[in-house]
Amino acid sequence: MQKNLEKVAGNGLISRRHLLGLGLAGAGATLTSQVLAADALPNLQIPGWSKQPGPGSSAYGERSPHAEHIQRMAGGPNPLYPGGGASRSPLQHLQGTITPNALHFERHHAGIPAIDPAKHTLVINGLVRQPLAFRYEDLLRYPMVSRIHFLECSGNSGALLRGDNPPDGTAQSLHGLVSCAEWTGIPLSTLLDEAGVQPTARWVSAVGADAASMGRSVPLSKALDDVMVALYQNGEPVRPEQGYPMRLFVPGWEGNISVKWLTQLKLTTEPSQFRDETSKYTDTLPDRQSLQFTFPMGCKSVITSPSGQMSLDSQGIYQITGIAWSGHGSIQRVEVSADGGRSWADAHLDSPQIDRSLTRFRIPWEWSGGGAILQSRATDSAGNVQPTRTAIINERGTLGFYHFHGIQSWAVANGGEVRNVFA
Amino acid sequence: MQKNLEKVAGNGLISRRHLLGLGLAGAGATLTSQVLAADALPNLQIPGWSKQPGPGSSAYGERSPHAEHIQRMAGGPNPLYPGGGASRSPLQHLQGTITPNALHFERHHAGIPAIDPAKHTLVINGLVRQPLAFRYEDLLRYPMVSRIHFLECSGNSGALLRGDNPPDGTAQSLHGLVSCAEWTGIPLSTLLDEAGVQPTARWVSAVGADAASMGRSVPLSKALDDVMVALYQNGEPVRPEQGYPMRLFVPGWEGNISVKWLTQLKLTTEPSQFRDETSKYTDTLPDRQSLQFTFPMGCKSVITSPSGQMSLDSQGIYQITGIAWSGHGSIQRVEVSADGGRSWADAHLDSPQIDRSLTRFRIPWEWSGGGAILQSRATDSAGNVQPTRTAIINERGTLGFYHFHGIQSWAVANGGEVRNVFA
Repeated sequence: MQKNLEKVAGNGLISRRHLLGLGLAGAGATLTSQVLAADALPNLQIPGWSKQPGPGSSAYGERSPHAEHIQRMAGGPNPLYPGGGASRSPLQHLQGTITPNALHFERHHAGIPAIDPAKHTLVINGLVRQPLAFRYEDLLRYPMVSRIHFLECSGNSGALLRGDNPPDGTAQSLHGLVSCAEWTGIPLSTLLDEAGVQPTARWVSAVGADAASMGRSVPLSKALDDVMVALYQNGEPVRPEQGYPMRLFVPGWEGNISVKWLTQLKLTTEPSQFRDETSKYTDTLPDRQSLQFTFPMGCKSVITSPSGQMSLDSQGIYQITGIAWSGHGSIQRVEVSADGGRSWADAHLDSPQIDRSLTRFRIPWEWSGGGAILQSRATDSAGNVQPTRTAIINERGTLGFYHFHGIQSWAVANGGEVRNVFA
Repeated sequence: MQKNLEKVAGNGLISRRHLLGLGLAGAGATLTSQVLAADALPNLQIPGWSKQPGPGSSAYGERSPHAEHIQRMAGGPNPLYPGGGASRSPLQHLQGTITPNALHFERHHAGIPAIDPAKHTLVINGLVRQPLAFRYEDLLRYPMVSRIHFLECSGNSGALLRGDNPPDGTAQSLHGLVSCAEWTGIPLSTLLDEAGVQPTARWVSAVGADAASMGRSVPLSKALDDVMVALYQNGEPVRPEQGYPMRLFVPGWEGNISVKWLTQLKLTTEPSQFRDETSKYTDTLPDRQSLQFTFPMGCKSVITSPSGQMSLDSQGIYQITGIAWSGHGSIQRVEVSADGGRSWADAHLDSPQIDRSLTRFRIPWEWSGGGAILQSRATDSAGNVQPTRTAIINERGTLGFYHFHGIQSWAVANGGEVRNVFA
């Protein structure tokens, strides 16, 4: 146990100056590195890979075999719901804020259509001056913008809203329906301007080309603000599971409204009351009435390490790290507690703080080998503070499933095992 | 030909208000979209992919088969230089600023070592108080930061510095040794603090575990500023061809100094005069003296569309787009000319302008079917303006190969074919 580590909150949260500036060695607390004889190389054998040239460059790169365990968690096929279901990003294995395209979460309602872009059409019709049909090739000639944004399924973390017993799970299984990418596409306002929106139009009904005909209604004010028809994701064409050749992208709002495989945009006076905005993606309150059209995702954070089903193997200093995001703006602050919310310390925001993007936070923590409850609490640029699970239940009850953004609690047991708890 | 398009520079550069706000239809100039009968769907057959559920989610995603032509351009194997060579990013097919990891450019001096991270060691020795050896597992417990930065080989675009005849090539073949990613790693200052840098140290000699023992000397001031030991690239572990399990990352500086497969950091009083900072990566001047240690990459831009070996197939409005970057800071301005530099207009910067990151620019251009010479000129936050090719040659001659950041000229012929030219 180090006696001279500056504490910033209870149960082991320490100042980062021990790791930046003064150095751990200066504080007398090396981590796990090996001190060598002065100016000597360790007693290392030159590894085989340093002795022979390796393979050269390639047209398309692959991961190291040692990283191939990092995978999405995909549900098995369900004969009653062909192609339906989700896969979750491996949050506890990722760092930074960008999600590689191959690991971006998925949610499908009738599987992934194998679209030939040369035979795909995007139609704009309804309350417009001139209905238009765009081929993929047409759209590539329109002006585009590039924006880094998170995307979160409104059902993410929903398991925490149900029942009295905290589900045993990982950061991935409980919270992996959120990812982040650079999306490049055409401002929807450009295409709507070209079609000419009639004065009575108030909503844009977006429909996908999948077999579910996934449809959602977008308020015209949002559609004209920052919505895009996205054609590229992290530099390359949008992946099939993300809507190839094109998807709607609605920054900050529940993922389901960013309709994939986009094929129609119809201007209407009223929302279209699609299946996925009535029977699904609504929040049932204790009086059995349901909230409809809860669009922006809440101010939220989750610690990804240490996190559920990990095990700490030795006492000492760990970096608590995680991600924070808000559909209302940028992340301004993340606080971390190691004592179940009794005391808090500010974490470091170690990535660009981009509007409606993931932000990475970190804080060093000295684990003494005893019990701890780790929590994080985000604050966004609109002043929203991430609420506790209890506060959300007091407000909305437990009949719902969507839009849960409460504080996640990870309990560290005496032996070092980490579990999801309600605290 | 549209008579009422507002011109912003010669030979067809037009105001973006025609595409944002007023709309093309308002200007009487639809692009290639099809006008439909009022409120009618086009005479479309429902495509087969909308009639049957598709496959569900998966553990690791793939691209659409229609996007698989987007590949790096890799040189073939060379028996005299096993594993050596490069592959180039397909700039003309990418959008936004992030390069997918599988398409990030490569440059190897003895191929890609197949490193087992459990058997890899990073040693810090030389002029330090306590030499240290770090295992991969150790390093994962250190604090990290995440930063989006470009990486550019100092030999990128070098073909333009040689000879009297402009090489026929694409944006990829001429300029594809630049890419951009979010890199996450440990600030080198943290590790150096732990080892304890002695007062006489001025340089850090970094050596890789590849069979070439690639080595480069980094000034200590830079090493303590913003250099990191990068472990993650766009969220996932660094790819093998980028240095798995770890590489040095030196923001803004020539790519070669970001030593891959990093295995040693030795503190020294003088640079180590490695092979790749003497016989290579130096700039030979007309008097046969050579400039050594030209570290930051210059303020630069390149139009990626239209670009070399493309062909414009019809008169009308195109989006000129490209990327800009500087090793000296962020991109503040990109100007575009369609008349070989006689007149210029400001392009729109349509991505976050991040320090030493790629920035995406765009400007609409009406091609009348005649000849044009397209150029772009970047200005960075330090006030540097991208020079012409002639200005660079006047300053440095043509004996060198590295650090070329002159203005790229693409000639559009009457028939629409686009070619690299010296202009």
